[in-house]
Amino acid sequence: MVSDTLLADVKKVLGERVSTSEVVRMHHGTDESHHEPAPPDLVVFPETSDEVADIVRLCASHRTPVIPFGAGTSLEGGVGAINGGVCIDLSGMNRIVQINADDLDVTVEAGVTRKQLNQHLRDTGLFFPIDPGADATLGGMASTRASGTNAVRYGTMRENVLNVTVVLADGKIIKTGSRAKKSAAGYDLTRILVGAEGTLGVITELTVRLYGVPEAISAAVCAFPSVDAAIQCCIVTMQSGIPVARMELLDAAQMKACIEYSDLSYQAAPTLFFEFHGSQSAVREHATTVQEIAAEYDGSEFKWAEKTEDRNQLWQARHDALYAALAMKPGARAWSTDVCVPISGLAECIAETRKDIEASSLLATMVGHVGEGNFHVIFILDPNDTAAFSEAQHINDRMVSRAIAMDGTCTGEHGVGIGKRRCLEQEFGGALDTMRLLKQTLDPLNIMNPGKILI
Amino acid sequence: MVSDTLLADVKKVLGERVSTSEVVRMHHGTDESHHEPAPPDLVVFPETSDEVADIVRLCASHRTPVIPFGAGTSLEGGVGAINGGVCIDLSGMNRIVQINADDLDVTVEAGVTRKQLNQHLRDTGLFFPIDPGADATLGGMASTRASGTNAVRYGTMRENVLNVTVVLADGKIIKTGSRAKKSAAGYDLTRILVGAEGTLGVITELTVRLYGVPEAISAAVCAFPSVDAAIQCCIVTMQSGIPVARMELLDAAQMKACIEYSDLSYQAAPTLFFEFHGSQSAVREHATTVQEIAAEYDGSEFKWAEKTEDRNQLWQARHDALYAALAMKPGARAWSTDVCVPISGLAECIAETRKDIEASSLLATMVGHVGEGNFHVIFILDPNDTAAFSEAQHINDRMVSRAIAMDGTCTGEHGVGIGKRRCLEQEFGGALDTMRLLKQTLDPLNIMNPGKILI
Repeated sequence: MVSDTLLADVKKVLGERVSTSEVVRMHHGTDESHHEPAPPDLVVFPETSDEVADIVRLCASHRTPVIPFGAGTSLEGGVGAINGGVCIDLSGMNRIVQINADDLDVTVEAGVTRKQLNQHLRDTGLFFPIDPGADATLGGMASTRASGTNAVRYGTMRENVLNVTVVLADGKIIKTGSRAKKSAAGYDLTRILVGAEGTLGVITELTVRLYGVPEAISAAVCAFPSVDAAIQCCIVTMQSGIPVARMELLDAAQMKACIEYSDLSYQAAPTLFFEFHGSQSAVREHATTVQEIAAEYDGSEFKWAEKTEDRNQLWQARHDALYAALAMKPGARAWSTDVCVPISGLAECIAETRKDIEASSLLATMVGHVGEGNFHVIFILDPNDTAAFSEAQHINDRMVSRAIAMDGTCTGEHGVGIGKRRCLEQEFGGALDTMRLLKQTLDPLNIMNPGKILI
Repeated sequence: MVSDTLLADVKKVLGERVSTSEVVRMHHGTDESHHEPAPPDLVVFPETSDEVADIVRLCASHRTPVIPFGAGTSLEGGVGAINGGVCIDLSGMNRIVQINADDLDVTVEAGVTRKQLNQHLRDTGLFFPIDPGADATLGGMASTRASGTNAVRYGTMRENVLNVTVVLADGKIIKTGSRAKKSAAGYDLTRILVGAEGTLGVITELTVRLYGVPEAISAAVCAFPSVDAAIQCCIVTMQSGIPVARMELLDAAQMKACIEYSDLSYQAAPTLFFEFHGSQSAVREHATTVQEIAAEYDGSEFKWAEKTEDRNQLWQARHDALYAALAMKPGARAWSTDVCVPISGLAECIAETRKDIEASSLLATMVGHVGEGNFHVIFILDPNDTAAFSEAQHINDRMVSRAIAMDGTCTGEHGVGIGKRRCLEQEFGGALDTMRLLKQTLDPLNIMNPGKILI
């Protein structure tokens, strides 16, 4: 519960833009993960960085937790108010502040979503490539160091955020950098905030890189006799320096689900979805080369999607992977988890995880952003079957240990939230103490999204 | 002066691998900048991270500064022992620890230089692209967030370091990350250390990305009627998404110097040096497209360098820019400075800076990594003319203010060292306090390269 004084003080700042309604609170304590919702005590709707700063200062003086909220699409419990407190809903801060076409960058408020941004950019010949499954806000995407299917070509939020404006735990507003494409000036505060999941401050504005819409785009689907063969094809493709824009793996189980869900005419075999960006002839050439590489690993003929609508259908099927998997078991709930390993270990990591799944009672599919060695397991669970959740946790724990043993990470793009906190000791060892020290320094009262990332 | 106890304790760890000789100390207090040398009291030559940790612990117990030293090629006084202390020369830690060809990464000790690494990689079909002018060590390059001519295509050290092993101020050794190409796990400690110039810890080992050697490489030179026309050509090239590997601007003064120094048959006009990487046909196509763009801005016919020796000669001329500038005035000393701005401001920033140079008594040339909006001024100064150094400082200050006013940065790749410390307040405002807080937290005794970055 927030105190009456705090509530009154907050209302002085925001007027009617506060809510204690149960529905609103529950919505803001719920994400897209398997974690239990944890509603905040109060939800506020600021419209400027100054208002956010006022709220944070009030919360600091009341030692009350502050939880930033974008689109609520976290996959590891990032928005749950596990210690109560005030949820700062940033969706009202959704202005496109400034497009700099010559500089290939744009400054936006934190509540702008990726689809909103690309819609806004549609007449400029530019686009923003980072595409996590959900239509997340850019503030949320920065906070979880999000990526998606284009990361193999365009990088993740780590590489694409030029600066952030952030409200620190004491209510101070700082801007972490300039719009320069590179800088050797001082400590990289931008990248301390990117991926901090709101535990070091609330991102209220950010500048991100943009890219020219490619002259030609072409997509293709190729089936392989095994996951291993598909991954070998990816390794050789990467070594050849072919700038594939997307290179997505779906395992046989996921393909089966997608074929049934979207009525596709593909095989239920391990499959790569490719996309190529560039000039007409570059796209043609890259595709031909990759096709030759695929053939060496017994890949099927490429099924092409060159027209926009065919391509959209293909990627819609990929983006619907979660819903397709869910449709395999009506009434089920999904638990999506991810790890990322050096690509040389990817086939083994997937195979061993598949073995664990087969040895369990669970239904699960796998999809991967293969270029970066990142893959997801989607467990399809009966929401009332607690034993099944324990089994999933066990398989997840083993997968994380396996990834870390291969010099990989416990999460490539979902973030830590509350779900992966126990993994950090194993992944970082003594470096975890340095992370704790940073948290204590930048948030001495432990009010910024407390209980996330660090236990 | 270090105390006799400290000296004796250090000798217990390193035996004869310590030096108090004046020549050795002076060498280790000198870099390639215009700043006065500042010799350390003692130079040590550790061969393992554990030895570095022992030295740092001893220095901490004696409250004695620790200055890491790689190749001594800093351009802003980064290696000067301005408060005395112990210089840790890492050049003996020059082992290639592990090449992972499938994963496109390599782990090296901090003392490995970029040329040593590429020499070692020459039979693997892989290369490491980051190329500051000097043959710097990878530890030094990480510490200064170095880049170079390939950054427009391959990024800087910020994007290419996957993890670092670092000795912290209390002698603790931590590894900041894994070999995964991306991670959403915890605070980005890697990027806190990259660019910290040894003020938060001593990097002893690091893992960096590698790339496949392109099938075809082609380089070309194109003269323009003005710097503005050359930069417009670059802006359109970038917006078109053409993946140029190098795009270097030399102004008329620099071209004149290079033509005289290397006996070249180019014009003394603003000139772009391009390089294209890819398949034979991609290189041809990209080059044709850029040639068309250049023609629209009255660029000359491209002068091609396709053969390796011709290309090497061309880039040698570019890399010799500093020596060519120095040769214009025998006995002179160079002061090289850089800023980085959004590319839309680059032409104006260069023009205004050129005006300042023309209005002064100084000789100076300009070269730029245009793709990122980064450019350098090389002042050619009489070493005994203190008034000239003041003039250079004045022009430098105005250029930095101009860059920051354009939402750029006071240094794109040279680092802060001691030369740009006074610029950070203007660039970062309140965020500078957060940097100070990080420094105090991670180095409470202020022994790690004290006086660098922060005053």
